[in-house]
Parts: sequence; structure tokens; C-alpha cells
Amino acid sequence: MTRTPRHQIESIVSLHAEVRTRAPLVQCITNAVVTNFTANVLLALGAAPAMVDIPREAGVFAGIASGVLVNLGTPNADQREAMREAASAATHAGTPWVLDPVAIGALPVRTALAAELKTAPPTIVRGNASEIIAFDGAGAGGRGVDATDVVEDAASAARRIALATGGVVAVSGPVDLVTDGIDESRLGNGDALLTRVTGGGCALGAVMAAFAGVTADRFAATVAAITVYNVAAELAAERAGGPGTFASLFLDALAGVDAETLRARAVVR
Amino acid sequence: MTRTPRHQIESIVSLHAEVRTRAPLVQCITNAVVTNFTANVLLALGAAPAMVDIPREAGVFAGIASGVLVNLGTPNADQREAMREAASAATHAGTPWVLDPVAIGALPVRTALAAELKTAPPTIVRGNASEIIAFDGAGAGGRGVDATDVVEDAASAARRIALATGGVVAVSGPVDLVTDGIDESRLGNGDALLTRVTGGGCALGAVMAAFAGVTADRFAATVAAITVYNVAAELAAERAGGPGTFASLFLDALAGVDAETLRARAVVR
Amino acid sequence: MTRTPRHQIESIVSLHAEVRTRAPLVQCITNAVVTNFTANVLLALGAAPAMVDIPREAGVFAGIASGVLVNLGTPNADQREAMREAASAATHAGTPWVLDPVAIGALPVRTALAAELKTAPPTIVRGNASEIIAFDGAGAGGRGVDATDVVEDAASAARRIALATGGVVAVSGPVDLVTDGIDESRLGNGDALLTRVTGGGCALGAVMAAFAGVTADRFAATVAAITVYNVAAELAAERAGGPGTFASLFLDALAGVDAETLRARAVVR
Repeated sequence: MTRTPRHQIESIVSLHAEVRTRAPLVQCITNAVVTNFTANVLLALGAAPAMVDIPREAGVFAGIASGVLVNLGTPNADQREAMREAASAATHAGTPWVLDPVAIGALPVRTALAAELKTAPPTIVRGNASEIIAFDGAGAGGRGVDATDVVEDAASAARRIALATGGVVAVSGPVDLVTDGIDESRLGNGDALLTRVTGGGCALGAVMAAFAGVTADRFAATVAAITVYNVAAELAAERAGGPGTFASLFLDALAGVDAETLRARAVVR
Repeated sequence: MTRTPRHQIESIVSLHAEVRTRAPLVQCITNAVVTNFTANVLLALGAAPAMVDIPREAGVFAGIASGVLVNLGTPNADQREAMREAASAATHAGTPWVLDPVAIGALPVRTALAAELKTAPPTIVRGNASEIIAFDGAGAGGRGVDATDVVEDAASAARRIALATGGVVAVSGPVDLVTDGIDESRLGNGDALLTRVTGGGCALGAVMAAFAGVTADRFAATVAAITVYNVAAELAAERAGGPGTFASLFLDALAGVDAETLRARAVVR
Repeated sequence: MTRTPRHQIESIVSLHAEVRTRAPLVQCITNAVVTNFTANVLLALGAAPAMVDIPREAGVFAGIASGVLVNLGTPNADQREAMREAASAATHAGTPWVLDPVAIGALPVRTALAAELKTAPPTIVRGNASEIIAFDGAGAGGRGVDATDVVEDAASAARRIALATGGVVAVSGPVDLVTDGIDESRLGNGDALLTRVTGGGCALGAVMAAFAGVTADRFAATVAAITVYNVAAELAAERAGGPGTFASLFLDALAGVDAETLRARAVVR
């Protein structure tokens, strides 16, 4: 598919309008640190969050949801079981689901779980460079949630994962990379303050699930999610006095950002 | 009991002063998404939160607490056991306790648990219209935490629950309904931004437990909790730039709202 | 060791610069209410949070981390096991670890766990007066997280704990006490608004772990952590309209506070 930057920007604007109109229901099985911020991000975006993360409910709900996020940040035993249920049910129902393999590599429980979930397979995989390299099976992992590798180092790992899963892979960094193994986009929006708020990356995974819930074009959904999110971060950063006020202003910006601003600011190549 | 609007407004003002003076200790067994916001709401109100939610401690603490909240949002196995302990201990000790049957109906684990807890019985039940209808046993539930029914559709379900439990039922919506099966109030304060912050409803359950901790009149406690909470939301909405700054300003308003403002703004009928 | 106030203030400034430069990796096994705020506090400070709190990962990570926080606020079964693993691994690796014995005394599960963890032993113990007295084995505990005792009542308990563990003990209050059983400092910074934000005390434990991660002098680390944290609280309180905006401004202040401000404001004796 030929995706010119201009085509992609119109797609971002149009998918953003779809999300606001249809309020996709996003199931999040995510870590204890970021549940609150993630739910608030989805509400600000115009989506409907539902944190259904216990066994015997997670699978049921994945059949109802528009999109599902599975984030490995603090995967206790109950959550791991719920993640397996949800991934399986989502795949069977054709519900798009996003895997965020937080801090895999160095940590054994989540690394094994990630390898298992890879076969489901996930519709979109989102991580920093270190996580994507580890998910590809090649790296030793980073230190917790920090990336110790840079985005371009992870480009070939990202392509391999995309071809293996038949899905989309997004690598976060100063410039974000999106690939389905063939097509590739690099997205230049964002602000460093996003890395000073916990959940800045994790909540983006939920936003990807929201966008994937309104279109069958998951590459376009991923590009739109990242760009809307990062443009809102830029708007907030211009007015913030630091990471605390930034987090509040970011939610305001996500609720308020319009098509004109997206067109004026989106950096896609 | 005859409850004129004027009588009720004076009761709101007086119970609000009681909460600030006595700082009721509110035990919350609540979902992972909203614990932080709920605790901050209680602190801003002038109450003392305590999130004691593990087995073998939850029952002990329910005997010490002024009021207890049981919220079914993310009920893992440990929490379910803690909820049973706390509900039972609260009932035995005469401690008022609030049940928020989040998203019951569609989801099997929590729906079974809600049916079990109904017999404890709860002092106050709080939910949106879909949850109240499901709790009455008649509905199929909503989609997650969204109400797909409107408040007046749930009025007869609410009355039946109140008569069955001998307690009070509150249905959230643009106009809130409070009933004990005989008396009824409709409360007109609030702002739509409360629905754009996660925990906007859940934290209100904790505020009800705080007010119920300072009076034996649980109907009056419920009316006062809703009105103080929703007037604070109005004050915050007037200055907010969106849902992010709203959440911060709401806590400020809850900490600062005074008797004069409550009298001027309370809409009770 | 002779620690003059002037010497201590220069040590605060210098350790603060170290934290910003080295970005210590702080593992937090903490309660569900405050994980988000704690992570944001560490990020604002310039440290790197990692909430690795499940069995079979917590011990592994404690060997990688610069410092570890174990907070007993909502200790479910998985977390209790993770805490034992992390405390043991940290002690073996020589990684400093902070114990915050939240609400021990009245609550049986955490009180037994605290007694067990005491023998690890913790590098720093942080609590309010009631918790420190209960940890010393002498008190009946407070009501949840509220201190019902005052700081000076806990001074001899704090000294006994410090001598028993060979570590440092900090008692929170209007004036904070830091002791290693021989040396003692009293720290006068802070603002009452910190007690109106949930996690105001809990997050300080994580900040202590960050400072202890950059120096072998744990007494100096504890003094520096408390002073930087409380000076930031003062800066935020001057601009806040209540506890909601205070929380955001506090993170901004923690990210922005500089050496000059620390020197001008630090109250150490």
C-alpha cells in the first residue's frame, strides 16, 4: 500500500474523528502503576475504558470490547491468567489487541509470558527499543522500563516481529517507528516530558487499542494513535511548569485537540 | 419522615460540618484504577482513608472503621475474600457499608459476588442505572462502567433493592435519585466532566461511607454526600480547561467548599 | 561523626546533584494506592522507578536496583512473598532498602510480616510516630495511616530500632527525626498539605531509597531525601489552591528545585 505523508495525515484526522464518535470500549489488563492514568487518557480521548483483569471475566469481556490492551508491567498470577484468557478470546473474536512487553528480557516471569502471548498473536506490539529487541529474542533486556537501546537499533527486530505475528510493531523513542514488516512510518511528534510521567508509554498502548477498535487498517490505527497522543503532549508541554502540571494539561489537550491542530502539527514520514 | 428541600439542605450543611470535625475513618476495598483518586477525595473532604483490603485484616479493620466501601471494579481473589470479611464484620459491628456493584450483569464473577453481598445486607447501594437494574436481578448489565439505561428506568429497581436490604439506594446520572423505598430525593447538582475522570462515580461511594459514618440517618448521609460532591464538581468545572485540570481543581474545591456555597447551589427535590 | 547543620546542608545539595546525575534505579514494592504518585515522584526527582513486585522477579531485580522500597500498605499474598525475596536479595547484594511499616500494630498480617522483615534487616525504616513505636514492639498501632502519637514520643523507639538493625530510622511529623542510634537530626521543612495527598509519606520512602542508592552514608541520604522532598512541598504550597493543585505543583517543584533554593530553605538541626 502506498502511504504518502499527506494520505497518512488525513487518515489520522479521520480516525481521530471516528474514535470520538464511536467511543470504542477498551479493555485494559495493565500494571498497577498506570491504571488510573491509562483510564483517564482513554476518557480524555473520547474512548471508554474498562479494566477487566481477573480470570473468568477477562475472556468474556474481550469478546465484547472494541480493543484490548495487555501490558506486562506488574503481572501477578491472577493477571497472567487473565491475560492468557483475553489474548485468546480476542484472537478468536477478531478483536484487535495490543501487547506491551514492559521490561522483558531481564525479568523471567514476564519474559516467559511474553513468549507465550507472542503466539496468540498480538495485533500490535508496542515497546521501547530494548523491549522490542528482547521480544525478538535477541537482547538481554533493559533496566526496568528504561530503554538502553535506540529506536533504529530495534528496526530490524521490529520488522521480524511484524512478519512473524502478521501484525504491526511500534517502537517508541524521540522518533517513533511503525512497521508491519513492509510499510514503515517514522513519526516525529512528542515531548520529553512524556518520559517524566509514569505511564506515558503504557497509556499509549491503550490509545492504540482504541484506534484499532475503529478500523481494520491497524497500521493506520497505530500511526494515528501515536500522532494524536504526541501532538497532545506538545500542546501540554508548551504550558506546563513541570511534569506534574504537564500530566493534567496533557489530559486537557487530548480532550481538546482538533483536526486543524493535527494537520498543522503532524510529522509523518 | 417529611423531608422538605429546605430541611434537606440544612441537613447537608450540618453533616458536612460533622465530617470535617470528626474525620471519619473510611475503609475502602476498591478497584485498582481508582484507589489513588478515592483516597485523595476522602482526604480533601476531611475524612481519613484506609485501603485495608487483604484477607485476615479487612474484617478486623471493618470493626474499627467509621464506614466501609466495597467496590467491585477489579475484584481479584484476595479482594473478594476481603470484601466478604469486611461486609460481614461491618454488619455485625453496625458499621455502615456501601456497595458499588461496578459493571455487574455481563461479568460472571462479580455478579455472583454481588448477589452474595446483597444478603449481608449493604447499608447503601450506589450505581448507575444499568448496575442498579442488574443488581435487582432484572437486567443484562451495561458495557463495563457505562450506563446504557437512564436513571428513571432504574427507579423501581432501586426501590425494590432498598426495601429488600432495609437500606438506601442511590442511582447516578444527570439527576441523581436517592431512595429508601419510601422517601425519595432527586438531586440536580454535578457536571459532565465528572464522567470524564475515572473514579468520578467510584469515589462518591467512599464519600457516602464517610457521611454515613457520622449519622444514623443514612438517607440524609447519602443525599449530603452526593450534593457536597457534585457542588464541588460544579465549582471545579467553572475553572477547568479539560478533564485533567478538572480533577485537580475538584480536589481543591472539595477541600474548600463552605456552607454558604452549599446553601446557594444545592438542588434538592 | 560530627554533623554540623552547615555540613549537612552541603551534603544535601551534593547528594541531590548525585541523584540527578546518576538517576538511581529504585525498585518499589508498594501499596496499590500510591504506586502512581510514587513513580511520578521518583521521575520528577530524576530517579528511575521500577515497580517489580511479583515473586520470582522481585529478588532478581533487587540485585540490579540501586535501592529498594518495601511498603506494607496493601500487602496481598503475592506482594508479601515478593517483599521477602527483595529484602533478602537486597541484603545479600548490599543494596540499600527502605522499610515503611504502614499501619502496623492493629493489623495482624502486616505486623507479623514487619517483624519478619526486621531481621533482614532494613537499611532505613521510615514511619510516623505510631508506626515506629509499634515496630519497636511497644505500641498498639494507630488508626490506619494516621499517627496518634507525636514524633518525640517515638524518639527512644527509633533509637532502639536503629541500634537493633544497624541502620537509620526516620520518624515523620511536623519536625522529622532521623537517628542511627547515636547521631540525630531534626528537620524542619515541609507543609501540612503533604498530609492531604495520599502517598505524601509513602513516596518519601522511595525518595530515601533513591538517595541511599548514591551514597554509603545512609544517615546523610535520609536527611537529604527528607529535606529535598519537604522543600519542594513548601514551594508547591505557596502556589497551590488546595490539595489537588498542590500534588501537581509538588511534582513540578521536585523536578525544578535547585541548590540555591535548598541552601536558602533547609532547616536542619
